[in-house]
Amino acid sequence: MYPEESRFMTNFIRNAWYAGCWSDELESQPQAKTILGEELAVYRTESGVAAAVEDCCPHRFAPMSLGSIAGENIACGYHGMQFDCAGLCVEIPGQKNIPGRTKIRAYPVVEKYTLVWVWMGDADRADDGLIPDLHWLDHPDWTAVTGTMRYDSNWVLLVDNLLDLTHTTFVHQSTIGTEDVANTLVTSERVGDIVTVTRIMKDAEPSNFYKRVGGFEGKIDRWQKIWLDPPSTVIIDAGGVPAGTSDKYSNDTYGGIDTRIISVLKPVDDGTVDQIWAFARDTCLDDAELDADIEKSITHTFNEDIEFLAGQQRNMDKRPDRKMLNNTADSGVVQARRVIDEWLAADASPAFATPIPAE
Amino acid sequence: MYPEESRFMTNFIRNAWYAGCWSDELESQPQAKTILGEELAVYRTESGVAAAVEDCCPHRFAPMSLGSIAGENIACGYHGMQFDCAGLCVEIPGQKNIPGRTKIRAYPVVEKYTLVWVWMGDADRADDGLIPDLHWLDHPDWTAVTGTMRYDSNWVLLVDNLLDLTHTTFVHQSTIGTEDVANTLVTSERVGDIVTVTRIMKDAEPSNFYKRVGGFEGKIDRWQKIWLDPPSTVIIDAGGVPAGTSDKYSNDTYGGIDTRIISVLKPVDDGTVDQIWAFARDTCLDDAELDADIEKSITHTFNEDIEFLAGQQRNMDKRPDRKMLNNTADSGVVQARRVIDEWLAADASPAFATPIPAE
Amino acid sequence: MYPEESRFMTNFIRNAWYAGCWSDELESQPQAKTILGEELAVYRTESGVAAAVEDCCPHRFAPMSLGSIAGENIACGYHGMQFDCAGLCVEIPGQKNIPGRTKIRAYPVVEKYTLVWVWMGDADRADDGLIPDLHWLDHPDWTAVTGTMRYDSNWVLLVDNLLDLTHTTFVHQSTIGTEDVANTLVTSERVGDIVTVTRIMKDAEPSNFYKRVGGFEGKIDRWQKIWLDPPSTVIIDAGGVPAGTSDKYSNDTYGGIDTRIISVLKPVDDGTVDQIWAFARDTCLDDAELDADIEKSITHTFNEDIEFLAGQQRNMDKRPDRKMLNNTADSGVVQARRVIDEWLAADASPAFATPIPAE
Repeated sequence: MYPEESRFMTNFIRNAWYAGCWSDELESQPQAKTILGEELAVYRTESGVAAAVEDCCPHRFAPMSLGSIAGENIACGYHGMQFDCAGLCVEIPGQKNIPGRTKIRAYPVVEKYTLVWVWMGDADRADDGLIPDLHWLDHPDWTAVTGTMRYDSNWVLLVDNLLDLTHTTFVHQSTIGTEDVANTLVTSERVGDIVTVTRIMKDAEPSNFYKRVGGFEGKIDRWQKIWLDPPSTVIIDAGGVPAGTSDKYSNDTYGGIDTRIISVLKPVDDGTVDQIWAFARDTCLDDAELDADIEKSITHTFNEDIEFLAGQQRNMDKRPDRKMLNNTADSGVVQARRVIDEWLAADASPAFATPIPAE
Repeated sequence: MYPEESRFMTNFIRNAWYAGCWSDELESQPQAKTILGEELAVYRTESGVAAAVEDCCPHRFAPMSLGSIAGENIACGYHGMQFDCAGLCVEIPGQKNIPGRTKIRAYPVVEKYTLVWVWMGDADRADDGLIPDLHWLDHPDWTAVTGTMRYDSNWVLLVDNLLDLTHTTFVHQSTIGTEDVANTLVTSERVGDIVTVTRIMKDAEPSNFYKRVGGFEGKIDRWQKIWLDPPSTVIIDAGGVPAGTSDKYSNDTYGGIDTRIISVLKPVDDGTVDQIWAFARDTCLDDAELDADIEKSITHTFNEDIEFLAGQQRNMDKRPDRKMLNNTADSGVVQARRVIDEWLAADASPAFATPIPAE
Repeated sequence: MYPEESRFMTNFIRNAWYAGCWSDELESQPQAKTILGEELAVYRTESGVAAAVEDCCPHRFAPMSLGSIAGENIACGYHGMQFDCAGLCVEIPGQKNIPGRTKIRAYPVVEKYTLVWVWMGDADRADDGLIPDLHWLDHPDWTAVTGTMRYDSNWVLLVDNLLDLTHTTFVHQSTIGTEDVANTLVTSERVGDIVTVTRIMKDAEPSNFYKRVGGFEGKIDRWQKIWLDPPSTVIIDAGGVPAGTSDKYSNDTYGGIDTRIISVLKPVDDGTVDQIWAFARDTCLDDAELDADIEKSITHTFNEDIEFLAGQQRNMDKRPDRKMLNNTADSGVVQARRVIDEWLAADASPAFATPIPAE
């Protein structure tokens, strides 16, 4: 039993980038998105720039997401006030003079790795170098199936879920779960603020999926290396090679297949989180049938988790003072929660407290 | 920018008449109606008298709206206690002696202008002379299409909406909105507690509706004169005459068409309001096809407002301390809110503080 | 008018047996049940033992009702921890050492009279001698039609409803209500903690149901004897004999028909109660068509009550300080509420305060 018991976390780390949606989902009609409990109108201007403002017109509090795009500006749909991407009011219908203080809160937005990223903290601290490395999503050697799932739980329970894959043996028996996973011990380590959980399964039976994609005929050596890129991106590096050949964690020469299951978590509110997910692979790049299989299988698998996480959240809400119990298998989860605690205390990456040097 | 910022109002003015429903909707089966957060059972007795009692039997708190009419009394449907229209208990099944203190709260009710009006304040202050003048609803020279719409917002947001028709240019582009409305400056004035907003549009293109009903061949002079009869009745006097001929606000001789769009607001609770509406006209009195067109068009138009008002309410609820911003076009709205504030402070018309002289 | 006004009761008596469900509803898949606001996973082990644990795994708070049965244990469906029927942890996947303090709360469970009974109080005070006598449910001379109804009200309002059958005259006019019931005075008495309400109707017209089942050709003498077996079991002893012949409450020789309408109430939370009901009879034991008629009729009848009780609860919630009024017919209800008050104060049968002697 792990000596430490984790706390419940329902607060947010504001000074960070969060994925609002996939880039190809953003069209000119403003969309309402809730991130960290704040409601935003996210939109794309006529010239194609992605932008976001508070979903509340300062005039009469109508939602900006009911408005429309006017060139590079967003117009409120109720009485027509317009704001530019920096939030400055540029038009009040029937009124020539626009007082200088007339503004709406605008959020820094960057598009990178096919995602629309929104900075939820202090605007002058936004630095797109802090966006997690997800280069598999737009690298020519890789292809990705993507989607979005909603869970009725706080975001930390989903971090737990993704870091501790022993649950796949029990929850996902019908799809990806195998006895091997729960029976293989993991190692976990923290380097800087990155927490990594590694599971190596030697001489294992390949799943049907692996057989099809990797062309394996005999047993394989499998790996799962999972890391949390805080605050809320979890990457699973999973793959396999013919048993007995080298794998990439002992040296860098290997055959076989390599995948990344990426989860960019968008905390919606204290009891809701969106998992913006991608399943990236470096083989069978133009196999639409395989894409469809993966989408179906991943959606089915994540759907099995939804009920558990919602139940955990309900149970937590009713037991505000009771602590969870940590088992040996939770070592990675415990380390990750410590990192999250540190970030929560700083409302940012703790390293961020040091001013970013000018380039 | 208007110098004053309006407050959020979620309280009610109790000493006033509110329309419970249309007279022709009231049948002998008691109906549950919520007005100012209070639940009533509204009913019509065997002889045709409209009446209302608290929707809670004093015996075991069963809803009286689940009961039935017994002659001139209302009977609780659970154990059969009966009350007369003044709220006095007149029967307890299986018990001969009725203690004198056994009562249910009864509300003064008056039917006038085809509406059922309920007095929500102190019963001895009810005076049907205070019911707003809506004679167009039962005058032989006029005909009216009527309906009821529900909004998920407090009632003051709907007063705002009706007094400031600049929103029609943006919200109702597909139906009644024209550029003329937002581009024409309004004048507003307060006389006593009546706040009036007037917009005169000269030499304007008639809408298809005006062409059909007024038989206009060329341009017209249009007017919109809107007033709040406090606390919660808004009347829009709208019409037009051939361009260049006199209109009724400069003198009283004119041709053309004249309409009244009447909104009698029933505040249901802090976040809900019913708009009991009528569209009255003095032409084409027996044109059923026109009636149907008007009903469809008005319903479509008000439906476009529902989403905006619900969004405003949600945004207000999340920002209890933030004030709205008033633009130049809000002068009428600002004056109306001042009147409403004064009535709220008095829980009645302020003039009402003076005792009503005995006749 | 009864001199005393009853209070609102929304608390629970924990040291008592409550029916979780019918025995034949309990299968090996754990079921989520809420009793007295506590969520339980109720299940049957491989050998057939009924058991119940808190619906929250101590590990990560996943609901145990999403788990499964492993022999005589229940396994959490998320990470596989197993507990025996006493709540002791017997397996942690991937971990050999199980700390002794690892437990889940287990509830005493007994199956009796075809029902699964759960003891919600202190486990060491559970005594199955305290289960109410419902021998009609598994006696060879009787047969019973059974079901479960949910009401959106607290459980005490349903005790009121069942003890005071005058409401049947008004609520159930179309089925079981007759003028006789409201017009016949009842007597009520309390012996120990059992409150009994008795209504004798001489020379009454038999209902169609009584004609069919009892074969009556003329008038009958009917009785209704209702008692509360606290905290929450109500039994209605109803039947009839040919008019003028003796009935069982004057002496023990009689012909005719005899029924028991049994309601075992399961308080779910402050505003919800399940009525686990049975209609038992000592005639026509193998008449499936009659069974179907009874089920349909009882379900229809109880459904008519649902709206009234939900309305009472809503009205009570809005009037926390107002007291109900008691009429003469409420004498039994008033006595029953006194008993319930006494049990509430003791969180058990008051007699229970005396320690149970060791056998």
